[in-house]
Amino acid sequence: MKVLLSFGYAGKVYPVNPRESQILGFKTYSSVGDIPGPVDFATITVPAEGVPEIVEQCLAKGIKALQILTSGFSEISEAGRKLEERIVNTAARGMRIIGPNCFGVYSPAGGLTILPGENFPRESGPVAFIGQSGGYTNRVTQRAGAWGVRFSKVVSYGNASDVNECDLIEYMHQDPETRVIAAYLEGVKDGPRFFKLLQEVSKTKPVILWKGGLTPGGARAVHSHTGSLGGEEVIWDAVYRQSGTVRVNNLDELVDTILAFQHLPPYQGRRVSVVGGGGGVGVAAADACERARLSVPTFSSELQKKLLAMIPPVGSSARNPVDVGGPSVTPVILRAVLEAVLTEGDVDTVIVDNLQMSLADPSASARDEQSDGIVIERAEIPVDVKKKFGKPVMVVLPVEAMDADAVEAEGARRRARNYYLGEGIPVFLTLERAARALANVIGYYERRDAVSSF
Amino acid sequence: MKVLLSFGYAGKVYPVNPRESQILGFKTYSSVGDIPGPVDFATITVPAEGVPEIVEQCLAKGIKALQILTSGFSEISEAGRKLEERIVNTAARGMRIIGPNCFGVYSPAGGLTILPGENFPRESGPVAFIGQSGGYTNRVTQRAGAWGVRFSKVVSYGNASDVNECDLIEYMHQDPETRVIAAYLEGVKDGPRFFKLLQEVSKTKPVILWKGGLTPGGARAVHSHTGSLGGEEVIWDAVYRQSGTVRVNNLDELVDTILAFQHLPPYQGRRVSVVGGGGGVGVAAADACERARLSVPTFSSELQKKLLAMIPPVGSSARNPVDVGGPSVTPVILRAVLEAVLTEGDVDTVIVDNLQMSLADPSASARDEQSDGIVIERAEIPVDVKKKFGKPVMVVLPVEAMDADAVEAEGARRRARNYYLGEGIPVFLTLERAARALANVIGYYERRDAVSSF
Repeated sequence: MKVLLSFGYAGKVYPVNPRESQILGFKTYSSVGDIPGPVDFATITVPAEGVPEIVEQCLAKGIKALQILTSGFSEISEAGRKLEERIVNTAARGMRIIGPNCFGVYSPAGGLTILPGENFPRESGPVAFIGQSGGYTNRVTQRAGAWGVRFSKVVSYGNASDVNECDLIEYMHQDPETRVIAAYLEGVKDGPRFFKLLQEVSKTKPVILWKGGLTPGGARAVHSHTGSLGGEEVIWDAVYRQSGTVRVNNLDELVDTILAFQHLPPYQGRRVSVVGGGGGVGVAAADACERARLSVPTFSSELQKKLLAMIPPVGSSARNPVDVGGPSVTPVILRAVLEAVLTEGDVDTVIVDNLQMSLADPSASARDEQSDGIVIERAEIPVDVKKKFGKPVMVVLPVEAMDADAVEAEGARRRARNYYLGEGIPVFLTLERAARALANVIGYYERRDAVSSF
Repeated sequence: MKVLLSFGYAGKVYPVNPRESQILGFKTYSSVGDIPGPVDFATITVPAEGVPEIVEQCLAKGIKALQILTSGFSEISEAGRKLEERIVNTAARGMRIIGPNCFGVYSPAGGLTILPGENFPRESGPVAFIGQSGGYTNRVTQRAGAWGVRFSKVVSYGNASDVNECDLIEYMHQDPETRVIAAYLEGVKDGPRFFKLLQEVSKTKPVILWKGGLTPGGARAVHSHTGSLGGEEVIWDAVYRQSGTVRVNNLDELVDTILAFQHLPPYQGRRVSVVGGGGGVGVAAADACERARLSVPTFSSELQKKLLAMIPPVGSSARNPVDVGGPSVTPVILRAVLEAVLTEGDVDTVIVDNLQMSLADPSASARDEQSDGIVIERAEIPVDVKKKFGKPVMVVLPVEAMDADAVEAEGARRRARNYYLGEGIPVFLTLERAARALANVIGYYERRDAVSSF
């Protein structure tokens, strides 16, 4: 309730508690039936044994939707499973339930946050997320939120006793606010329905799915967490492939892929140029891109000649990846290189890697006075060229300074990151992660276009 | 020269420059021959065309070792290749050369740093690193150094015209200061010698090898970077397998694996327990461990019963991974759980994952007064139990707070990280990375023991 209020929920709130007369300054009611007006939505947090009775009271009150935070149902025992069955039977008489064993719904448009997320973004965005783990739903929303991702709705739905993953994905499919659907699942209630739904939704909206419990040990952990069946990896491989669902395997890849879908345009080819500073970086970048099944084509000899006239003659490379010689390239050179690559490079996406990017950088090479007298910073160049050419640009900004006392440099880099994200340029911590996220986006659209052309 | 001085080099330094009379307060000499006393080591930074003559002067002066920073040799053209040949022919008459196209040697015991590393650690340690890329050699040393890794010697050797990767690995093999050898290579000069050397060295010291350029695009980048041949992945697969070399595929995995070798004991089995807070974390942890070919065995029912008496009855798991219910578990409960796991869990390594670990944490659950009246912090518990039981403990501390203004929290976490590293507990940013590094260490010792038992 504290979180809901500090998030700024604007509707009426009725705490129900038989032992208190006031909670956080609000008059409490000793039972649901005592609440004077109509109620749209209830959150239940009493211990498991008390939940069925409260659900009955909510039904009697005419409440159409509930979420149940309480754990201790089908995920822990046969007795818990029976308790859960009673709740579902009550709900079948005229209400829908999210949970139990979940954090519930975050809906910025509705001013609603039930997850421990009083600091979640207030603005809505194009990404829906559903998660069978409350902890992960919270972490995904926190992390992606800090990287500029904005959500339409987020739902932690726990045991999926009534409203399940299919209901939620169906809803997000139709939701005009939602453009990208992401999910963390441990099990599914109805395999055939789930598979057909993924096939259908993937025709118009990408579904990014992290399936937990695909190893034997993971499957055992899934069982004790949400009482689901983990499922075998070989079956899930086929589900991904045949439905066009975007596969991710961990939290980092999930957040990276959401970010890439939010910022990158629908169709891109696999041809990438990497522009960075420092030769080993070029080798690693090419390896990382090609391992993610992107291609890093060698530039034409004309373009190479042109680039070589801009960058240092030694300790550099003009072939692609382009090595501009070092991470502190001047803005004027960086702009000339990126413009040449974007106009003549015959690539679909440019990744700017391993350059020193922070705003208001005091070092001399970080800014140039242009011919028009305006001073421009190195960090501004990727934004400038993206605007000018309309091609996708991605930036890799590693957490390079790892010392405990280097948090100032970290702050400067985070400000640069926020600036890029605000300008529609997705930012990643490593080139490997950038390449994988880009390949996930491209793979989705390639398959979608191939299927729709039948 | 500035870096060398500010690093604190204690020997004599003679700048050679025909146009200046003083550099950084030191008298300069117009040629190498003018230097009055004997010289042990020279660093050459003049443009490529001038290098052969300087090398001749060094030979005449009786200098036995050089490093050449200058680029523009065999890595860029046939003319460069011929220049390089001249240098090598001169060296054959009585000196050894590192480079050209390299940053050279960092040796804390010798007070020497030629890499751009005036802030590298002054203390020596057990890890040797050699790198064909100057940029990567610098980044590996910086990053690993920030994570508490200490080096015996680091060498960026560039084009390997004279002293090559085999010479360096042979040296590190015999160097009593070096216990772990790590390398970033783009190509090798003599395949059969390299392969036999790896087989030999791996019997007593682990060799962690990141081979750049294993994809076609990476191989092209390798060619323009150090003029090496990239080599095919299938051949390198066999080299790794048949020589017992530890394979890593990127910078993060290289640093993680160095860290794991520095802190973990020589032999461990593959059985792991993960202790964390938040159920989704347990599922992901089990998946990550098993994908890295570690095992996460389910605990005996006796141990599960014992653990269930310590942790919340719902929203938790006692099977392994252990979910203590949330990231803010109290120190007393965390200690009891870890002690039970370490004594009865029948596992080789414990990974502490997703707990709120920072020093001097102001929140109430972060500390407990023990029965002896001493106050203990949550973050101290992993150190306590590691000391008491002598079993390897690893900690996962993600960069969770990603907001630009959350650098304070980041600073607190970094201080906790340094505390763990100082106590011999390796720290990783994600569970995936911890599991992979651990598996790399275990795989090395498993193979070594299997080979030596023939």
